[in-house]
Amino acid sequence: MKVVALAGGVGGAKLVDGLAALLSPDDFSVVVNTGDDFDYWGLRICPDLDTVCYTLGGLANPGAGWGQKDETWETLNGLKSMGGATWFKIGDKDLLTHLRRTELLAERRSLSSVTRELCSTWGVNHLVFPMSDDPVRTIVHTAEHGALDFQRYFVQFAYQPVVRLFEFCGAEVATPAPGVLDQIGAADVVIITPSNPFVSIDPILAIPGYRQALEDKVVIAVSPLVGGQALKGPAAKMFHELGVEPSASAIASHYRGLLKGFIFDVRDQTELEKIERWRIIGLLTNIIMHDFQDRIRFAHEVLKFCESILIRSK
Amino acid sequence: MKVVALAGGVGGAKLVDGLAALLSPDDFSVVVNTGDDFDYWGLRICPDLDTVCYTLGGLANPGAGWGQKDETWETLNGLKSMGGATWFKIGDKDLLTHLRRTELLAERRSLSSVTRELCSTWGVNHLVFPMSDDPVRTIVHTAEHGALDFQRYFVQFAYQPVVRLFEFCGAEVATPAPGVLDQIGAADVVIITPSNPFVSIDPILAIPGYRQALEDKVVIAVSPLVGGQALKGPAAKMFHELGVEPSASAIASHYRGLLKGFIFDVRDQTELEKIERWRIIGLLTNIIMHDFQDRIRFAHEVLKFCESILIRSK
Repeated sequence: MKVVALAGGVGGAKLVDGLAALLSPDDFSVVVNTGDDFDYWGLRICPDLDTVCYTLGGLANPGAGWGQKDETWETLNGLKSMGGATWFKIGDKDLLTHLRRTELLAERRSLSSVTRELCSTWGVNHLVFPMSDDPVRTIVHTAEHGALDFQRYFVQFAYQPVVRLFEFCGAEVATPAPGVLDQIGAADVVIITPSNPFVSIDPILAIPGYRQALEDKVVIAVSPLVGGQALKGPAAKMFHELGVEPSASAIASHYRGLLKGFIFDVRDQTELEKIERWRIIGLLTNIIMHDFQDRIRFAHEVLKFCESILIRSK
Repeated sequence: MKVVALAGGVGGAKLVDGLAALLSPDDFSVVVNTGDDFDYWGLRICPDLDTVCYTLGGLANPGAGWGQKDETWETLNGLKSMGGATWFKIGDKDLLTHLRRTELLAERRSLSSVTRELCSTWGVNHLVFPMSDDPVRTIVHTAEHGALDFQRYFVQFAYQPVVRLFEFCGAEVATPAPGVLDQIGAADVVIITPSNPFVSIDPILAIPGYRQALEDKVVIAVSPLVGGQALKGPAAKMFHELGVEPSASAIASHYRGLLKGFIFDVRDQTELEKIERWRIIGLLTNIIMHDFQDRIRFAHEVLKFCESILIRSK
């Protein structure tokens, strides 16, 4: 079975890690949101790409959901003493990624080519695609502060402002990264990982080509919510602020039209009926991944579910 | 006495350090070559500005002539293991400068404003001006490799290629940094420090406004050569390759038309007659500065010489 995953940060990265442990690099690749990318200390930072790649490379800080394990903070502390920006925490190991990426981008290499090179450094053998080599920037329109760059909203304001609208600047003129539509074309299943639908998955879908490519595919999604709560981050808060009760079915509804299958937590089993009414096949399971064993266990369930849907579709 | 110095890297920085110890920030400022500036690891590097500022701030690595003292090399080693460029050595402390500068430039601050902010961080109280806020890039045309960016010629090729010509791209449309012509206008004396005439001082003089500003001034220069040898760097080699015998008088001749006074080493006393024939007042002394005491001693002699010329000029 050939699989492509669409992913944002932490939640997506965990499932991607489990899938990569079960599927060979020929059979599994990932498309990662780059709407969060930004420039900081003059360097190009790609938070979701880094989270996915660090996770796949075994370099991720398991506690934080960002950055590398066993970090030191000499540079951050040094810049702090010089009055530099420190609201986004970059460790000394993590810094190497941003320096090397910025160096390669300055040589006019594309982000997908740079990402391949970084992955090879980290021993990441599965293909990790940025959603596009073109700049797409997620802007969060907020009640209190107007339009905010995503990282300012997310990190500097700790996602406290009330969201009104999301905008993916540049998406309409961006194109999918080279090769990515071929991967989707060759895939049996596309998995929308448990990432934030508004700011991790929607930026990908906003780029012309993706939605159309998914329409011909078996697409399944995994809920990032359990009991109406986000496992991490502001997904539930965003639903509330946009006037929608956060729930597994709200996620399924968000992707309605694309989905053949939807995986959500047993604690949300009362929503199964609603979801199946939309002709989406539901799988109830424990979707929380605490450790690597959970990732493998859950990825295995996800793949079995995909297989069963593929058999039904034939 | 109000003094402005024109400076490049090491030699210039040493004299500047001595002068700064003897003259107050109201009476002494420095204009520094930025023709060597370049981008590396995606960061803006200003080698001569850094050498001058590190020297004034007591941060310089006394042995190397570049970088900071007590350096560590974690980032450089990390990038090396990732296949990054390492031909230009950036230490972990030095890196903070380039990150902070690049961050501030990305906020559309001018290089002179950024330099003031960095100086304030380092406790450098004398004004240090980049020669211009506009980009000027020194290109070295060589026999073997054609046109080379200055740092590639200087560091990567260890100044081995034979020079044919120097070009200061952008100089003709650059303007002196804000306030710098006022400083020169208010100065009693302008000192051309013992830096490389071709690649440290000529880039400054190539910017419209400087040469004219100096024409009304008492200008003195200090030779960077002793006995036809450069104290550091390729100055003597460059003279040879351009068909001129390197000597104190070759330096004086290079600046002829601008100079009222010229300071060179006692070991070159046979050249005094030639230099005085050009109506340049000569001072023979020991121009080598090994340590901080030498810098003070020599700066004191330089200032006394300037005073004597000012008295003669009145």
